[in-house]
Amino acid sequence: MSLQAEARSTAESASAAIALHIDAAFDAVFSPSAPSVRLGESVLRLRPKHANGVREVRVRWSLHGAADAPLVIVQGGISADRRVAASGGEAGWWDDIVGEGRAIDLRCRRVLSIDWLAQADLGDALAVDSDDQADAIAGVLDVLGVRRAHAYVGASYGAMVGLAFAARHAHRLDRLVAIAGAHRAHPLSIAVRNIQREVVRLAARHGDVAAGLDLARRLAMTTYRGEREFAERCADVPRHVDGRFRFAEEGWLGAAGARFAQRFDADRFLSLSESIDLHAVAPEAVRASTTLVGIASDRVVPLADLCELQRRCGSAAALHVIDSRYGHDAFLKEPAQIGALLHEALEP
Amino acid sequence: MSLQAEARSTAESASAAIALHIDAAFDAVFSPSAPSVRLGESVLRLRPKHANGVREVRVRWSLHGAADAPLVIVQGGISADRRVAASGGEAGWWDDIVGEGRAIDLRCRRVLSIDWLAQADLGDALAVDSDDQADAIAGVLDVLGVRRAHAYVGASYGAMVGLAFAARHAHRLDRLVAIAGAHRAHPLSIAVRNIQREVVRLAARHGDVAAGLDLARRLAMTTYRGEREFAERCADVPRHVDGRFRFAEEGWLGAAGARFAQRFDADRFLSLSESIDLHAVAPEAVRASTTLVGIASDRVVPLADLCELQRRCGSAAALHVIDSRYGHDAFLKEPAQIGALLHEALEP
Repeated sequence: MSLQAEARSTAESASAAIALHIDAAFDAVFSPSAPSVRLGESVLRLRPKHANGVREVRVRWSLHGAADAPLVIVQGGISADRRVAASGGEAGWWDDIVGEGRAIDLRCRRVLSIDWLAQADLGDALAVDSDDQADAIAGVLDVLGVRRAHAYVGASYGAMVGLAFAARHAHRLDRLVAIAGAHRAHPLSIAVRNIQREVVRLAARHGDVAAGLDLARRLAMTTYRGEREFAERCADVPRHVDGRFRFAEEGWLGAAGARFAQRFDADRFLSLSESIDLHAVAPEAVRASTTLVGIASDRVVPLADLCELQRRCGSAAALHVIDSRYGHDAFLKEPAQIGALLHEALEP
Repeated sequence: MSLQAEARSTAESASAAIALHIDAAFDAVFSPSAPSVRLGESVLRLRPKHANGVREVRVRWSLHGAADAPLVIVQGGISADRRVAASGGEAGWWDDIVGEGRAIDLRCRRVLSIDWLAQADLGDALAVDSDDQADAIAGVLDVLGVRRAHAYVGASYGAMVGLAFAARHAHRLDRLVAIAGAHRAHPLSIAVRNIQREVVRLAARHGDVAAGLDLARRLAMTTYRGEREFAERCADVPRHVDGRFRFAEEGWLGAAGARFAQRFDADRFLSLSESIDLHAVAPEAVRASTTLVGIASDRVVPLADLCELQRRCGSAAALHVIDSRYGHDAFLKEPAQIGALLHEALEP
């Protein structure tokens, strides 16, 4: 069951970057068995970093959890969406962390999340920036009449946007938890993502975009996961099939690549991948109470960058390092460790 | 100036895997200013690992240095060739290590090297194996009438083939130096090379093979070099050119990719890349006096694999670890460190 509603913002945003256009439609799912969610779309007036002037931008958002509870913004990687937690029979991408009785407990928290903006959402902007995503989230807070969020919890690209949010909208946030994301992308990771995008462009030039997305995702997977996991999962010897040898690695990553190519749009992938590489926040500008979480085996975000971020942070930031066989994806694969840290970081 | 000669082997190889077909042509360059080299081609009868029975295989080899000095076999990565040292005005790929007065001193050493066999050289074989390369080298020793080599020095794929040589032709070798190569490829590296090959195949399907080789090489470069080098080389902020942002990483790797696409054949690349991934030697079978060299920042060959190789080696093997900003490519980029280790390992 769903119902429509309309929201009006009560005030213009305090941020110069955001003027608010009022046009939000809410869908809400209320069912006795399923947790509730409100899904909304708002057209905001934003000033994209890589464009001149104001653009009207449609932002899709969700609200999970207790209606009047302290609000926590939750954002994941570039392939995550606003369906953070399960609702209406559909799984959320972070159900292990966000839910009733979970580390971000929907019985006493309200969770806001947006679908990432892609470049195409910004009209003629040259790119979409983590700053733009942060401004969009601030704009949705305005729509909801929320002056200040209890916390922002972001992982991967979501952590980058969290740092941008804390730097640009300091007065809207009490606490920031940034997991496996830093103030800038590492040059080696930029190089690998650049190749991912070039593979998609090569395939697109020849009308074979799905094959390009597939390979780009396989390549991304080699950076998301840990060395140890590869060693453990890929013990099988290669077999000669259909004219060439097939390796265990190919089977595993090929399946992941094919799934991604089916569900993800190439232009969206290109613009969000580039957005990671354009991300740049001055750590000194981050003044919320900040918890940084690094993963020792992370091949995308080296610990050294999180140490630099902590050292330069505008507030005293705590840096926690978790051990995992899963590399960067530990934010998805180690809910016990991540949950314990979040529980501590979000306590009143 | 060059001259032709012909070599006849004096005896059939002791190895069951090699029967020798006598058909070697020598070219020799003698000039007062340039060091001498003898280039030869021999047709050998080999039993490829991934074929049934014997194939006649043409092997191209070189001999640098003092004519009657102790022989050292030197082999590099898959993109290296038999031009190990400078001759006739042409640079060698390892001039910093192999030359008069260098760590492998051509005044008192004779250096043998072969061009790697590709799958196409083996007729209908399903793949070319590191075992096949090792057998080809043993066959050339037969052609040259060399019963036993003083040493084998190999780096990267050359180290893998060295281990195969030591395991299959134990009686032909006193010492083995294996730099940045182990008894098997690491599954994470296999995954990344598999993607490189798939990119080349994708491009080839669309008649755009140079673009595929270019991207495959860029991707390989992200694994050959160290995190620190990327951080140091790529400090420039991205610039918007021709409709999209260009990153410093793209300029550097793009140039390397384009050079590689110009000089390297796609089928050769595919078969040698696969050969790395098929490589498998039982460390227990390696009984030469063995020196292993690892690079702490190597992202292709993890130190843990060299530790396992050392632990399981059939002889007491020494493992040296060198520190470098260059990752896997330290075997090319750190001649002082590599040279010192070689000097020690090759002393009579």
